[in-house]
Amino acid sequence: MKLAMIGLGRMGYNMAARLARGGHEVVAYNRTFEKARELADAEKGVTPVETLEDTVAELDTPRVIWMMLPAGEVVDENVDALLPMLSKGDLLVDGGNSWYKDAPLRAAQAGERGVGFMDVGTSGGVWGLTEGYCLMAGGTRDDFRLLEPALRVLAPERGYIHCGGPGAGHFVKMVHNGIEYGMMQAYAEGFAIMEDSEYAAGIDYSTLSETWNHGSVIRSWLLELARDAFREDPGLDSIKGWVEDSGEGRWTVQQAVESGTPAPVITLSLMERFRSRRENAFADRVLAALRHAFGGHAVKR
Amino acid sequence: MKLAMIGLGRMGYNMAARLARGGHEVVAYNRTFEKARELADAEKGVTPVETLEDTVAELDTPRVIWMMLPAGEVVDENVDALLPMLSKGDLLVDGGNSWYKDAPLRAAQAGERGVGFMDVGTSGGVWGLTEGYCLMAGGTRDDFRLLEPALRVLAPERGYIHCGGPGAGHFVKMVHNGIEYGMMQAYAEGFAIMEDSEYAAGIDYSTLSETWNHGSVIRSWLLELARDAFREDPGLDSIKGWVEDSGEGRWTVQQAVESGTPAPVITLSLMERFRSRRENAFADRVLAALRHAFGGHAVKR
Repeated sequence: MKLAMIGLGRMGYNMAARLARGGHEVVAYNRTFEKARELADAEKGVTPVETLEDTVAELDTPRVIWMMLPAGEVVDENVDALLPMLSKGDLLVDGGNSWYKDAPLRAAQAGERGVGFMDVGTSGGVWGLTEGYCLMAGGTRDDFRLLEPALRVLAPERGYIHCGGPGAGHFVKMVHNGIEYGMMQAYAEGFAIMEDSEYAAGIDYSTLSETWNHGSVIRSWLLELARDAFREDPGLDSIKGWVEDSGEGRWTVQQAVESGTPAPVITLSLMERFRSRRENAFADRVLAALRHAFGGHAVKR
Repeated sequence: MKLAMIGLGRMGYNMAARLARGGHEVVAYNRTFEKARELADAEKGVTPVETLEDTVAELDTPRVIWMMLPAGEVVDENVDALLPMLSKGDLLVDGGNSWYKDAPLRAAQAGERGVGFMDVGTSGGVWGLTEGYCLMAGGTRDDFRLLEPALRVLAPERGYIHCGGPGAGHFVKMVHNGIEYGMMQAYAEGFAIMEDSEYAAGIDYSTLSETWNHGSVIRSWLLELARDAFREDPGLDSIKGWVEDSGEGRWTVQQAVESGTPAPVITLSLMERFRSRRENAFADRVLAALRHAFGGHAVKR
């Protein structure tokens, strides 16, 4: 099929490349044109365009436009700009990490013009180009069918799913990321316990990660990434212990609070990331001050 | 090689079978002889024996005896009974889930007779027979080499590792299980958040687990097990939400306390298992009583 990719960042660029390699015709648009041209130079079947108007003009109806944009206002700006140029039967896809509650609103907005809207949660990171992306789609059954040829190329076999109506895709992707936070934290704590033990010097974490991936209960793709990271830098000395979060972890915790669902480990995994960014934390100074106040315990200045 | 397997429970039975299928001669001993005979009837190359004395007598020196026994006293009883019958160069292997601090003590006890001792953490559960066991070995380099032909057959390719001196194997296995607790809890919370959402009815968790295992960041073997569990019972209605723990999770948390290593998620995963076994928990009654006391909030009777 022919479709447009809007937003050629780390994710969008590789996804457009994968679509093109899979035999689709890709109209490529990016805020800075150089990226689109770079992609067209690198991949066959890519038409670089300079404006959203050109993007729409290059497509046949029903037009399919896949947006890979940062969550929030940028998505709304693009939806607002594109919708007046689209017509009944066209399909807008938000493949970014948008908040799932935005999808039904945008779907309703698009629906006023008869334009379809799908929220497609996309997992796979920088490895997706070669391994394929896991895709979690929300929207109508008809729009899902229209989009399916693209999903089939972007995902590995059995790697895409229709999760339900508008918002379901981003909702499931959000939960996926929450789980990811918890899994990563579990591994991190395990390695930390080993690192603080008498056995630390004798254990090569890269080899251990590789071994654990052969027959153990905790084998996973994250552990393959751990193996590679430890192989490159056995003590991870080149990395600062400062961990960002990208929004979906926070939304998962907010969701748990909203539905009253106990999710202590996912919540704490998020809090540990917050903590990683605090040196000499105010909370710790409060604790030290209180210990000093009631017990006369020494404080460090 | 020829070696003995002592303890033909869920783990030991299958491991003895895998050793026999891999071309080793297995002397099989179990507290109840029927299990040993059953194994010998099922697998070629297995010699069932009725006593520990016969076990030792059937082996050639250096004798290798692998114990798959419940952690604690049973292991000590068997070590105490076997050691007087063994001689210099023989090797005792504890493949069970023993506390890692027991291994150096038992290694010292065995060493007094010139007998080697290895602690080999074993992961893989009931799937090990067909997929192989991930093996984490502690002990001397020489004993590791003596045991290696057995490890090679028990494990899948690249599925065994020498972690260090006595205790290192069970230490690493303990941490492995702690990580396992955290990973499982992260998945569990994620599914619970979905189950409590407006999208629950539209999501088939088995299909979703399968999809997540193709290209997503959270793909893992545990997720394959989740897929199978949800396929069999989509709402897990046949299962009570009562979760046991097998000791290693507790030891991991105790270890974190001992070394002062922050491990909040692994710790909380253990606590969540404790909580799963409390209905109408005392702590919850305390909370309800206090809310009532200071705010006049209604309590349920």
